[in-house]
Amino acid sequence: MGPGEGASETDRHLAYEFGRAIAREGWTTLCGGRNSGVMEAASRGAKEAGGSTIGVLPGSDDRDASPFLDLAIVTGMGNARNSINVLSSHVVVACGMGKGTASEVALALKARKPVVLLNSPQTAIEFFRGLDGQRVLTAASVEEAIEHCRALVKGRKRI
Amino acid sequence: MGPGEGASETDRHLAYEFGRAIAREGWTTLCGGRNSGVMEAASRGAKEAGGSTIGVLPGSDDRDASPFLDLAIVTGMGNARNSINVLSSHVVVACGMGKGTASEVALALKARKPVVLLNSPQTAIEFFRGLDGQRVLTAASVEEAIEHCRALVKGRKRI
Amino acid sequence: MGPGEGASETDRHLAYEFGRAIAREGWTTLCGGRNSGVMEAASRGAKEAGGSTIGVLPGSDDRDASPFLDLAIVTGMGNARNSINVLSSHVVVACGMGKGTASEVALALKARKPVVLLNSPQTAIEFFRGLDGQRVLTAASVEEAIEHCRALVKGRKRI
Amino acid sequence: MGPGEGASETDRHLAYEFGRAIAREGWTTLCGGRNSGVMEAASRGAKEAGGSTIGVLPGSDDRDASPFLDLAIVTGMGNARNSINVLSSHVVVACGMGKGTASEVALALKARKPVVLLNSPQTAIEFFRGLDGQRVLTAASVEEAIEHCRALVKGRKRI
Repeated sequence: MGPGEGASETDRHLAYEFGRAIAREGWTTLCGGRNSGVMEAASRGAKEAGGSTIGVLPGSDDRDASPFLDLAIVTGMGNARNSINVLSSHVVVACGMGKGTASEVALALKARKPVVLLNSPQTAIEFFRGLDGQRVLTAASVEEAIEHCRALVKGRKRI
Repeated sequence: MGPGEGASETDRHLAYEFGRAIAREGWTTLCGGRNSGVMEAASRGAKEAGGSTIGVLPGSDDRDASPFLDLAIVTGMGNARNSINVLSSHVVVACGMGKGTASEVALALKARKPVVLLNSPQTAIEFFRGLDGQRVLTAASVEEAIEHCRALVKGRKRI
Repeated sequence: MGPGEGASETDRHLAYEFGRAIAREGWTTLCGGRNSGVMEAASRGAKEAGGSTIGVLPGSDDRDASPFLDLAIVTGMGNARNSINVLSSHVVVACGMGKGTASEVALALKARKPVVLLNSPQTAIEFFRGLDGQRVLTAASVEEAIEHCRALVKGRKRI
Repeated sequence: MGPGEGASETDRHLAYEFGRAIAREGWTTLCGGRNSGVMEAASRGAKEAGGSTIGVLPGSDDRDASPFLDLAIVTGMGNARNSINVLSSHVVVACGMGKGTASEVALALKARKPVVLLNSPQTAIEFFRGLDGQRVLTAASVEEAIEHCRALVKGRKRI
């Protein structure tokens, strides 16, 4: 998860590399699906590394879907779809921070899903740690984020 | 799309064969995802024939997901997820008929999606044809349903 | 519930009179909320007779809300909001028939809510009775629809 | 908006007083609707002061609705309904802070709705101000929160 139009170049770069790393692990990349920012970068990275990608779109058609998706889920629900993003994920990795991303992190914690914050501002780390000290992990690099994910999905069934 | 617990043996048999046929075409089977009735049968057919399967679940976890899904989208929205099922499909094929299935056919027509009715009772055919004579097709067999789908997706981009 | 742009003059007339009758009973009129067809007519009737009106809108703002609403619930969910309409109602009265209305009747039956069909075509009556013979009532007039509702809400708590 | 089970006594006291103040202004109190925490306290305050109250419930029935609601909207969507809460509000006032509340503040900012933070921890204020410095206001008292609301709704049509 991460900002669309508001993503920084660092956010996009990390998301791209993280998408590649997810694919190398054999996991599926699920994101908000639009052709913008962190969503697009993560999908492109995963796709280029031979991984599976799925996007959960806010709109009522797939017009603004990233071309790097294997499959688009068209919700027509706007940002209420952020709840679906987190419920459908085994681990929520937030790359960068924005309004939509913040709602996803909060909804993930509400749903008792583990969250990894990558390239988050310090205010975000402090705020979300205050909400749930146990489920919020931080990562200083793509490698560290992947290590957190490995530990978190260990022993989970794979569907 | 089709009934869960209320599916007849014919519904389940046709759904299984239709899932196999979807896989042979290289298409993705998207259904309501639960381990029951038409959903389970279609996913199993598609999976056994080497196809891709995705389920859009009503619940807030994947406890009742069919084991034949490649991926579960967990919506936590109950039957409001029926709208997502149809918006995410290129063609909606209803196998058998029930309350949830009827809502999906109606929502599909509202969203201007083509619908193929397979093993529908005559009252359903007449009702839905009355709602939208152009977009409702009927099929007497899995083969005929696939032929309708082929014609309907012709020229569509594949994502 | 009932058609928007596709409502007939009879649908709108009955919806208006039914809205007035709901208000006289001291009940709340909940509808899809748009400034069109059966929604608008029912809200106007209820409001003019001094009743309470609430609309559950599909869009992400209240731009197309009927001016006869006391309150607009803005869902931003498109027709997935049809599920909310029926879950929030004690009785679902469908006045006329269309694609969205059909989805609401089907979702209501799925949620085990009683449905009263007013001015429904015979094909709709037969189809929905086939889905759930017990919960589908028909009414030939506004008075008969109100009588069904009185019987159905008897003894229900009022919130 | 505010925490349910996790609400502090101060949160509940402020929510109760704020509900009373909303009623005195002639506005409608819309909240998450459950019989718990800030939702219950705000509805009770509003109701006791003669105001109108509406609750947008996460569950698929009204079993856990606050008894102080005039009307319950039953969404069956879990926390995806948080998006409806903010889209349906003219101003989002967060009293206290929790996971669900954080998602509502973030979704409100995403939807360009003004937010007033009442009794928020400093980390929340800093985080949300960093997301949108213009739309996040803070209030040290119920009176100050109401003053912010008055300024924000000035000139808005009333539905």
